[in-house]
Amino acid sequence: MTQTAQLVSEAGVAAVARRAREASRVLATLSAEARNEALLAAAEAIAESKERILAANALDCRAAESAVAAGKMSAPMLARLRVNERGVAQMAAQVRGVAGLPDPLGRRLAATELDHGLVLYKESCPLGVVGIVFESRPEVVPQVASLALKSGNALLLKGGSEAAHSNEALVSIWRDALGRCPGLAQVSVNLLQTRAHVLELLALERDVDLIIPRGSRELVEFVAKNSRIPVLGHGEGICHVYVDRAADLQKACGVTYDAKVQYPAVCNAAETLLVDEAIAAAFLPEMVAKLKQGGVEIRGCPRTIALVPDAGIALATEEDWSTEYSDLILSVKIVSGLDAAIEHINRYGSRHTESIVTEDAEAAARFMTEVDAAGVFQNASTRFADGYRYGFGAELGISNSKLHARGPMGLEGLTTYKFKLFGNGHTVAEYAKGEKKFTHRPLQ
Amino acid sequence: MTQTAQLVSEAGVAAVARRAREASRVLATLSAEARNEALLAAAEAIAESKERILAANALDCRAAESAVAAGKMSAPMLARLRVNERGVAQMAAQVRGVAGLPDPLGRRLAATELDHGLVLYKESCPLGVVGIVFESRPEVVPQVASLALKSGNALLLKGGSEAAHSNEALVSIWRDALGRCPGLAQVSVNLLQTRAHVLELLALERDVDLIIPRGSRELVEFVAKNSRIPVLGHGEGICHVYVDRAADLQKACGVTYDAKVQYPAVCNAAETLLVDEAIAAAFLPEMVAKLKQGGVEIRGCPRTIALVPDAGIALATEEDWSTEYSDLILSVKIVSGLDAAIEHINRYGSRHTESIVTEDAEAAARFMTEVDAAGVFQNASTRFADGYRYGFGAELGISNSKLHARGPMGLEGLTTYKFKLFGNGHTVAEYAKGEKKFTHRPLQ
Repeated sequence: MTQTAQLVSEAGVAAVARRAREASRVLATLSAEARNEALLAAAEAIAESKERILAANALDCRAAESAVAAGKMSAPMLARLRVNERGVAQMAAQVRGVAGLPDPLGRRLAATELDHGLVLYKESCPLGVVGIVFESRPEVVPQVASLALKSGNALLLKGGSEAAHSNEALVSIWRDALGRCPGLAQVSVNLLQTRAHVLELLALERDVDLIIPRGSRELVEFVAKNSRIPVLGHGEGICHVYVDRAADLQKACGVTYDAKVQYPAVCNAAETLLVDEAIAAAFLPEMVAKLKQGGVEIRGCPRTIALVPDAGIALATEEDWSTEYSDLILSVKIVSGLDAAIEHINRYGSRHTESIVTEDAEAAARFMTEVDAAGVFQNASTRFADGYRYGFGAELGISNSKLHARGPMGLEGLTTYKFKLFGNGHTVAEYAKGEKKFTHRPLQ
Repeated sequence: MTQTAQLVSEAGVAAVARRAREASRVLATLSAEARNEALLAAAEAIAESKERILAANALDCRAAESAVAAGKMSAPMLARLRVNERGVAQMAAQVRGVAGLPDPLGRRLAATELDHGLVLYKESCPLGVVGIVFESRPEVVPQVASLALKSGNALLLKGGSEAAHSNEALVSIWRDALGRCPGLAQVSVNLLQTRAHVLELLALERDVDLIIPRGSRELVEFVAKNSRIPVLGHGEGICHVYVDRAADLQKACGVTYDAKVQYPAVCNAAETLLVDEAIAAAFLPEMVAKLKQGGVEIRGCPRTIALVPDAGIALATEEDWSTEYSDLILSVKIVSGLDAAIEHINRYGSRHTESIVTEDAEAAARFMTEVDAAGVFQNASTRFADGYRYGFGAELGISNSKLHARGPMGLEGLTTYKFKLFGNGHTVAEYAKGEKKFTHRPLQ
């Protein structure tokens, strides 16, 4: 058992969460300068500890290689686990990058004079304690630890057991670096390592404010089902590209190909192509040929197959329309037009990201208003749905929820707000009796 | 069985929710003018239907009077149920007021040029379908129906059975008025009436985006426990007033009295008074005398009793510190200072609203940063925590959640946002290969 995991086992997750809550109260009082200095110290510690991180990772990779050989782990999982020298340098660079982002705390979101001498401010502040459950990739540790520190939150982390040594080394380096910063509690980042710990974590409503599961759909569903703590994440990414009758077919071809082929394993890749019947004959044969060249297996509706009969397209089943392939497979359906496309997407989509290819601004506007998704795009690949590409500087994950954070979540996803009211002995009774009246004057 | 309830029973709640989802798609496309016209039509219909509403309410009140006589219902519950002529006029006026509020939809929350010809907007939009479960007061129907319509959301409403006739009349009048507005689906407001319907509702994750329970702590906990749909509300309001050593004692006395006495039955009334030991002797005797004059029962810590021995103060138990009395009862504790006050509040408070009375700006700043609550006040009564007093124009409820909406919720609580991305055939591959670079230029 590793060092921090042993600490958790001895104290129990509830005690660790309570200490994290106490740490979060301290974090909330730190200035932006103090938080950024701590981030830079952590970045330096990571860079300096390269050998230790690589050695720990080598231990994990050796065990994983045996697991792959025994058919108990997939090769891509091993690939995600592996960290090299460049990876360590990137981790440190990312932490430094987070230090350079604007401060998410203390932002004045609204200011109103309620009456003379009675002023209300709405100000951003940390959530408090955040639990993050993730799989495989060790670089998640410095990534989420830096976002949490930047936003003044304490963290309970649970990584996959396959990365136990790597995660342990990273958390331990992080804690040591923070221990050297005045006023900063080491316990602001804590590592859990067993599934039993996760179950304990999910029950700690009073001391954990948010859980973010990052990983498989099964993981996200398990967490959501077993906790009353708010959960943000996405179970599925069933994204569509709809090629409208008014599409520029060259753009349509480029966007569709990119959305499917550029990186098919991720949630913002397209799973289904919808094609307006008015341009299907002009568009589909060439598109299908290009996709097949890219190694894409196509499953089509009967009309698609009839239109491109020699392409060896399999018949799509009802299940195909609600399947996230995460692979070089694309389902294709010819629809009667915009209305049918919107209806199909609202029925089968996962509300993640949806794209229309059209030169018709009105069709685009209708698509964007009526499609119920975090991202609605015109003439752009669904693959743009990402915190870095959106310019957030960092991504915590992607949320399919409509509440709090929707779509790619940046630092803002780790903040909430409070109302600060400054008075001079003001009481409600005078207003209730009509002796005083509110001014409700917006300030600035 | 009333008319709309019968419709629900025949179709099933799932079918009603599906129709509400369809209605929500139409609502999302309506202009602000169309929504406001519909609100004015509904307000007029309510005013014109005064006799019908009063007659339905009389039926409910007659049954409630028997229930009160038989000891099966409390007198305050009957009082909340009763609607008079002035009440109907107020309902209509409130709906007109909501029509006059700024449009919460289509607000541009951010705009960024990602690259030349690739522009990202973050825009507010409706949540979709909202379920509201409430008790007793029939005026909740037009209140939440108007907020939902203003924000483009469809509604599933469940009122208490004691108000069945009143609610049925109000929903039916509302639906008839909407039926006369072009493009507006009558089914955007739906009434459920049995507890079985509520249980069905709580399972409809796909077609219901948010549940707001308004009522007893038991109701809120029942809803939260039985649903995976996001829930916003507050189970408890355990609010504190802390009188600091640097307090102006006259302000302290006024704020404390108002926070406890002005309306003790509501969630933003104070339940516990914390007093800095440095000013306890100067402050408490007079404060206790005034509270007792106001009919307040006091439960104190041993030091409080020792300080005011002749006031008949009962000894507060551990349970008192976490009890929401909702009545003319106040627990009082002498603490060693600011740190102890903050610790007590973070331990026992319900994160609703907390007030410090002090002339020391630094103490107030620390209190506001370190106390974990939706509202943190200086020199003002906790009773100000309210959507109308905050200037939101309308209140949907108060949230103790830190996610999405915190504190008094106005129209904004019924909206989410989407990311709209406008491109010109942009694909991710070029950026991944380094052939293109993002500009990430904030617009406006």
